[in-house]
Amino acid sequence: MGDEEGKPNPIMSSSCSSDQTLGALKPLRCIVKLGGAAITCKDELESINEENLRSVCAQLRQAMTPSKSPSPARVLGMDWSRRLGNPTVSTVDEFREQQALDLDSNFIIVHGAGSFGHFQASRSGVHKGGLDLPLVKAGFVATRISVTSLNLEIVRGLAREGIPSVGMSPFACGWSTRQRNIASANASQIIKALEAGFVPILHGDAVLDHLQDCTILSGDVIIRHLAQLLMPKYVVFLTDVLGVYDCPPTDPNAILLREIEVTEDGSWSIVKPKLPHAKKEGMPVTTVSP
Amino acid sequence: MGDEEGKPNPIMSSSCSSDQTLGALKPLRCIVKLGGAAITCKDELESINEENLRSVCAQLRQAMTPSKSPSPARVLGMDWSRRLGNPTVSTVDEFREQQALDLDSNFIIVHGAGSFGHFQASRSGVHKGGLDLPLVKAGFVATRISVTSLNLEIVRGLAREGIPSVGMSPFACGWSTRQRNIASANASQIIKALEAGFVPILHGDAVLDHLQDCTILSGDVIIRHLAQLLMPKYVVFLTDVLGVYDCPPTDPNAILLREIEVTEDGSWSIVKPKLPHAKKEGMPVTTVSP
Repeated sequence: MGDEEGKPNPIMSSSCSSDQTLGALKPLRCIVKLGGAAITCKDELESINEENLRSVCAQLRQAMTPSKSPSPARVLGMDWSRRLGNPTVSTVDEFREQQALDLDSNFIIVHGAGSFGHFQASRSGVHKGGLDLPLVKAGFVATRISVTSLNLEIVRGLAREGIPSVGMSPFACGWSTRQRNIASANASQIIKALEAGFVPILHGDAVLDHLQDCTILSGDVIIRHLAQLLMPKYVVFLTDVLGVYDCPPTDPNAILLREIEVTEDGSWSIVKPKLPHAKKEGMPVTTVSP
Repeated sequence: MGDEEGKPNPIMSSSCSSDQTLGALKPLRCIVKLGGAAITCKDELESINEENLRSVCAQLRQAMTPSKSPSPARVLGMDWSRRLGNPTVSTVDEFREQQALDLDSNFIIVHGAGSFGHFQASRSGVHKGGLDLPLVKAGFVATRISVTSLNLEIVRGLAREGIPSVGMSPFACGWSTRQRNIASANASQIIKALEAGFVPILHGDAVLDHLQDCTILSGDVIIRHLAQLLMPKYVVFLTDVLGVYDCPPTDPNAILLREIEVTEDGSWSIVKPKLPHAKKEGMPVTTVSP
């Protein structure tokens, strides 16, 4: 997120050309990563950046709307909660009149934690494991409360934009690790949700680990796994900087990379701009093999 | 819930004597159903009965505390959220000093929806299926938002009482139905959470259905399935009446049944009180075969 106008800026960090299908399912169009920094105020504990979240949800709706579709008179929201006042009765009636959603919702969205979960996880050391320690067990519970509360807010934000989103916590889905690497990540329920026309919303989560009891599974690792498995057409990262830089973007000399070429074997090189001393180290680039 | 003092009243509606273990896991001690009417204000959309919820969580903590344990000086909460103020730093430090949790948390808790989810589900007809209809799809999303927000509040309430609770939505766990009967209900993640010392918190949920696309899976059906699978020592229902009656308890002539005998084949009879015209119909009784 964050272009010159401070608005979210989708960054295509990788794409793959395969049209491999998921059984009878049409190929997955896109996995979107909502960076924690893009949707929360990083320096304030458990604080959502409401403006950015609204903007991101509206842009995602736009991305899911077929280009030939006329703009709807008004977006029909799918969060019929009390706290939104009482607009729901008319919304329900308007949905009743609709023949189809007219939305290409063949997306998966994965979000980071930002200012949710980090405090709880880092203070208790959930990533290091050891559930026999009351502090780690409590931290696991506290971390999950925090990240699932963010997940619920993001599902709500997307639903308000008429995106049929369903929260799916990796822990509840049964995802687990072995010494922090994914050991079990059954995506069958995610695929079924996609087949049914829903947009699964996953998140970085505290999960069980086969060797060290528990750890933190990051949104980026989830995306890498899902991308390898489901071969989406695009993987899009929304973050709080303009793109991928040759070194941390907080460095005033950091150079924005315009084009990165990724080969079949997963190696990559910088195409644009031509750097005088091409660096490959610095800010890690998450890539997806085609 | 609700005894003479208006306080929650655990009702033992069934028990089973089997000591069958879950692999290496000690036998499940208890499945607790928190009735929707016990924890929400049924007549007010999405309103939690905070007093009852606090009381239920405190009683559950008491039930999990070994009888020989001294009362703790103060309960260390596991919800370290911003909205609880900022008590967490001292709590984290106190957890650091603890050697063990000293809690028999071998429980599963399943809650109903009460004033959460019902409006969204009934107005859209999620239970009747048909995800091609935008109204049903939107209702599915709205129902899940509502019931998962209640689930999060219950997990928070239990965590504040020091119970290591983890929310596990049946939809995310991959539970599904075939014409409203459970078709797939993988409990492996629930068992793993129990083995790790957590208390899984499930809830009535909107789920996918193999024949009619989607439906509502009730907390009672979840409990029946888990009880058959995991053979807990007790199944306890917390509700807003004193127990099981011979007819709906809103009837002024309803008689409270003190003892119901359930035989091996699942049939049952009323032992106390002796009813003049023993009725077996009326309010359905959820029973669990030993």
